[in-house]
Amino acid sequence: MKRSGEHPLARWLPILDWGRRYDRHRLTDDLLAALIVTLMLVPQALAYAMLAGLPPVTGLYASLLPLAIYTLLGSSSTLSVGPMAVVSLMTAAALGRVAEAGSADYVAAALVLALLSGVILLVMGLCRLGFLVNFLSHPVMTGFVSASGVLIAASQLKHLLGVPLSGSTLPALLDGLPQAIAGLGMATPLVGLGSLAMLWSLRRWGRGGLMRLGVPGRAAALLLKLAPIVTIVVAALVAGAAGWLGHGVAVIGTIPAGLPPLGLPTGEPELWRTLLWPAVLISIVGYVESVSVAQALAVRRGERLEPDQELIGLGGANLAAAFSGGMPITGGFSRSVVNFDAGARTPAAGAFTALGILLVMLTFSPWLERLPMASLAATIIIAVLSLVDLPAFVRVWRYARGEGVAMVATVAATLFGGVEIGILVGVGLSLALHLYGTSRPHTAEVGRVPGTEHFRNVRRHAVETDARVAILRVDESLYFANVRHLEDRVTAVVNRQPPPRHLVLTCQAINVIDATALESLEALNRRLAAAGIGLHLAEVKGPVMDRLEDTSLMKTLNGRVFLSTFEAWQMLLRSTIAQPAAGGATVRHRATSGEQGPCV
Amino acid sequence: MKRSGEHPLARWLPILDWGRRYDRHRLTDDLLAALIVTLMLVPQALAYAMLAGLPPVTGLYASLLPLAIYTLLGSSSTLSVGPMAVVSLMTAAALGRVAEAGSADYVAAALVLALLSGVILLVMGLCRLGFLVNFLSHPVMTGFVSASGVLIAASQLKHLLGVPLSGSTLPALLDGLPQAIAGLGMATPLVGLGSLAMLWSLRRWGRGGLMRLGVPGRAAALLLKLAPIVTIVVAALVAGAAGWLGHGVAVIGTIPAGLPPLGLPTGEPELWRTLLWPAVLISIVGYVESVSVAQALAVRRGERLEPDQELIGLGGANLAAAFSGGMPITGGFSRSVVNFDAGARTPAAGAFTALGILLVMLTFSPWLERLPMASLAATIIIAVLSLVDLPAFVRVWRYARGEGVAMVATVAATLFGGVEIGILVGVGLSLALHLYGTSRPHTAEVGRVPGTEHFRNVRRHAVETDARVAILRVDESLYFANVRHLEDRVTAVVNRQPPPRHLVLTCQAINVIDATALESLEALNRRLAAAGIGLHLAEVKGPVMDRLEDTSLMKTLNGRVFLSTFEAWQMLLRSTIAQPAAGGATVRHRATSGEQGPCV
Repeated sequence: MKRSGEHPLARWLPILDWGRRYDRHRLTDDLLAALIVTLMLVPQALAYAMLAGLPPVTGLYASLLPLAIYTLLGSSSTLSVGPMAVVSLMTAAALGRVAEAGSADYVAAALVLALLSGVILLVMGLCRLGFLVNFLSHPVMTGFVSASGVLIAASQLKHLLGVPLSGSTLPALLDGLPQAIAGLGMATPLVGLGSLAMLWSLRRWGRGGLMRLGVPGRAAALLLKLAPIVTIVVAALVAGAAGWLGHGVAVIGTIPAGLPPLGLPTGEPELWRTLLWPAVLISIVGYVESVSVAQALAVRRGERLEPDQELIGLGGANLAAAFSGGMPITGGFSRSVVNFDAGARTPAAGAFTALGILLVMLTFSPWLERLPMASLAATIIIAVLSLVDLPAFVRVWRYARGEGVAMVATVAATLFGGVEIGILVGVGLSLALHLYGTSRPHTAEVGRVPGTEHFRNVRRHAVETDARVAILRVDESLYFANVRHLEDRVTAVVNRQPPPRHLVLTCQAINVIDATALESLEALNRRLAAAGIGLHLAEVKGPVMDRLEDTSLMKTLNGRVFLSTFEAWQMLLRSTIAQPAAGGATVRHRATSGEQGPCV
Repeated sequence: MKRSGEHPLARWLPILDWGRRYDRHRLTDDLLAALIVTLMLVPQALAYAMLAGLPPVTGLYASLLPLAIYTLLGSSSTLSVGPMAVVSLMTAAALGRVAEAGSADYVAAALVLALLSGVILLVMGLCRLGFLVNFLSHPVMTGFVSASGVLIAASQLKHLLGVPLSGSTLPALLDGLPQAIAGLGMATPLVGLGSLAMLWSLRRWGRGGLMRLGVPGRAAALLLKLAPIVTIVVAALVAGAAGWLGHGVAVIGTIPAGLPPLGLPTGEPELWRTLLWPAVLISIVGYVESVSVAQALAVRRGERLEPDQELIGLGGANLAAAFSGGMPITGGFSRSVVNFDAGARTPAAGAFTALGILLVMLTFSPWLERLPMASLAATIIIAVLSLVDLPAFVRVWRYARGEGVAMVATVAATLFGGVEIGILVGVGLSLALHLYGTSRPHTAEVGRVPGTEHFRNVRRHAVETDARVAILRVDESLYFANVRHLEDRVTAVVNRQPPPRHLVLTCQAINVIDATALESLEALNRRLAAAGIGLHLAEVKGPVMDRLEDTSLMKTLNGRVFLSTFEAWQMLLRSTIAQPAAGGATVRHRATSGEQGPCV
């Protein structure tokens, strides 16, 4: 959000900024949004806690204090934080390593994990490390989230069908399926698949139906966000009428009455060490998800998001979750969009949502206890289907094959190796791909576009060239990984018969010359000088020239530095005109295949 | 070396190429070079085996068959392979983990390590992975080698002074020094320090002395390469006369007569697993050292080196070492330079050197057995002093602070964490530094250099600008790690009052637009279109344009693609001339501080 920054502390506590402009209109809007989000959030919080292998009430606890803290610290006006699908899956993967799902140790470890995530996010925020998020490429993130969606859906089959399945990879999860299906009951699959069918139908035809009933389109869309709670309640009523609840159809079970337990997370040092690395991954993935949503919504409102402040907001929210019986949380896509569409104006909507959930907990917990797990699983499955973005695969694959391969590899690593391996493979591959690309820089020999001061690739355009003056455009910053390629290219050019008298390196695309490249240029300069060929630079950028100024390259350069390629071309041709080159180097007009478009 | 490639197998066996041109002149040159290198190599091979914690004879074994194999497979005419300082240090670090120095297991493990290195190098060569070497930046490599030199010198103190010291890091090596010095003997330090003094004096004044005796400069320099063997022989004679050899002054000891033992390396699978990773590091470091030397010498002769063939040559040589009682080897700097200076013409010089060493072994082993270890240690210490390149630190630090920090960090990591941690820290830091740099791209708003078609940074040059047309030059390829910075920069420009009517992105420095950046540009295009601002591209390079062609960005672009910035400037100004901008956007001449040099 736009912040005037008048209050000295507003930099760290955005609420000081928007709080003073708060009025009745904003209050009404925020309250309405909070009501809708609350109704949507209750089943979501229960379901994602279940996905993480935690008691469902943990999800509710994680939706109280953290939302209030984010209201104080967050910089997004519409982001809604709480338990989220991918982070819950990662939580399950991390905790499964240290304790048995559902045990007291498991619950305690979840608090440690939330605390570690909170600290990591806060530290990143205070160190202004928000830029690190930039190192996750979109294709890799899309691949990771899509594959996580598949993993999540598979992990919910056990609740949906009431069969024993476990594991954190797709093969492990599907391994016991045939056997499990053989021992299938009747009641649970009926409730689960029935809920799935109802959710699917509402999603498919609900909006049209409501509009035919006279509900305006936008309101209809908002109302349909309540489909999960409606479905679960209907399923609970039907299963209750059939006498299945608790007898054949598993229900959520005891939800302790009252406020969340406050306290410090505890655990052996060994536990903290084991959970540190998963906490790093959870923090990064959670932050990336959260900041992407917040950014998208901020742009739609013309607001500005502070990535580093978001780290602090999320970090504070996770600490709050750790101190109040919760679990690792982050900003969620669907709930934030609902908050946005329902008209939330300020972060206060989040605090009101927390109040709403508290009210529900205090009033309705006996009812919540009787909700069927199978229906909750159905809501998760429907929700994560939207995480699978198949068109993105096609789009990326067609635009950039290498990135497409990285994307597919990320999917495979996530499905077959689990979420942590998946995200690491993805990040590693996208960095490796980028480095590989820059290590083989594109270079082009250029000539003059007739009648202009413009120079273009001789292989793509009809341009003037001269055998005495070779002009090489280097299309990449020069650094340690790619200097050898440049050396090879220059060698090829100067080994021509007749050799050129001058070699001009056009540096418009060179943004950095590192120490390794500098050494290499110095060696090149010596070699060309020995061969009687001048080495000239053109269009060297300011920041690059500033650093070259004092180097021995500039002191010994066997040639000149020109402002523009055109200037180099004019001056060097003029200086060599008195000495015709061995090969009769007249300016020739080279006509190549028609290509003439707006490309170099 | 230049290869005509006439023989179909010459690609893989360079000997088929140079072999057929072999004649009597080349033979004479190669024989002379081999004689000098042999005399230099014998003490070196013994000393480096000792450095690796292996029986000295191992160094001789590693200088026989491997040299012959390299002669067949290598592409450098002057590279001399064998045991080398840094690789021997790394070998000691790796073997120290699996067995006690000097034990039979230790010797067997050295063969496994050589075998693994050989296989890794061969596989890299066959997969044409020679380019991987480019990912080690010079500053990091210089830092690593310098620190290794210090570690090696420190590790030789125990032999030089005849005291018990051990460890693979500087603190560990120096830890026992005070206590060791308290228990110092007399004979060994006398021999060791005496040898050191003699070597130092020969190095310092030897050449001048020889030249005063009438020896030509070049011959004097070559003769001085024999200083180590002369020193060791003198030390042995003196110590022998004093009756110290074997009584107070440790000697090399038993050197088995006859040929090296041939056989396959063996070991537990666990051993192979443990040594795999060290073997990878040894292969990479050895290859980088070797290829740098070979490259430098090839340039001096105008020959061309095939990096992938070098991998195969080194891989074959290491396999040969593994099968004949050797140790991991690589191409060495000093011995190759001696080979070069002594006039070696073809790889045959290497084979002759191997023959020479064999002769020495068969004839002189009783003499070799009585060489004092302290003198060998002195030769190592003098040799590795040249690895420490202090001026490079100053140069790099002044040119690029970030790389200087990486260099110093590499030194610290090597000294205090050992060679393996050192090289990993170095590679990691140089990549991280590069990525960090490209993630914060330089962007410049540009204006027209009056009277030309050239556009330069408004903050550095006196250029014409127009409030209606903002021209932003992006000085970096657009990829996932840096698109957010561009978004921020564009936002700052279009939020100006009055806002521009057109935004031109000058893409001359953009070599790649990846899928993440494409999405970001599409989003930018939508935002600017909504704000009524045209988004135009200029100077898009051919390869970039080819890929953009079919994307939705090109289909929905709210503006045009211009061949040059000048064209964009002309056309856009003409089109907006009828509609004066809110802020009275006359073309203004902006004069900035004098800077006018050849920089953008």
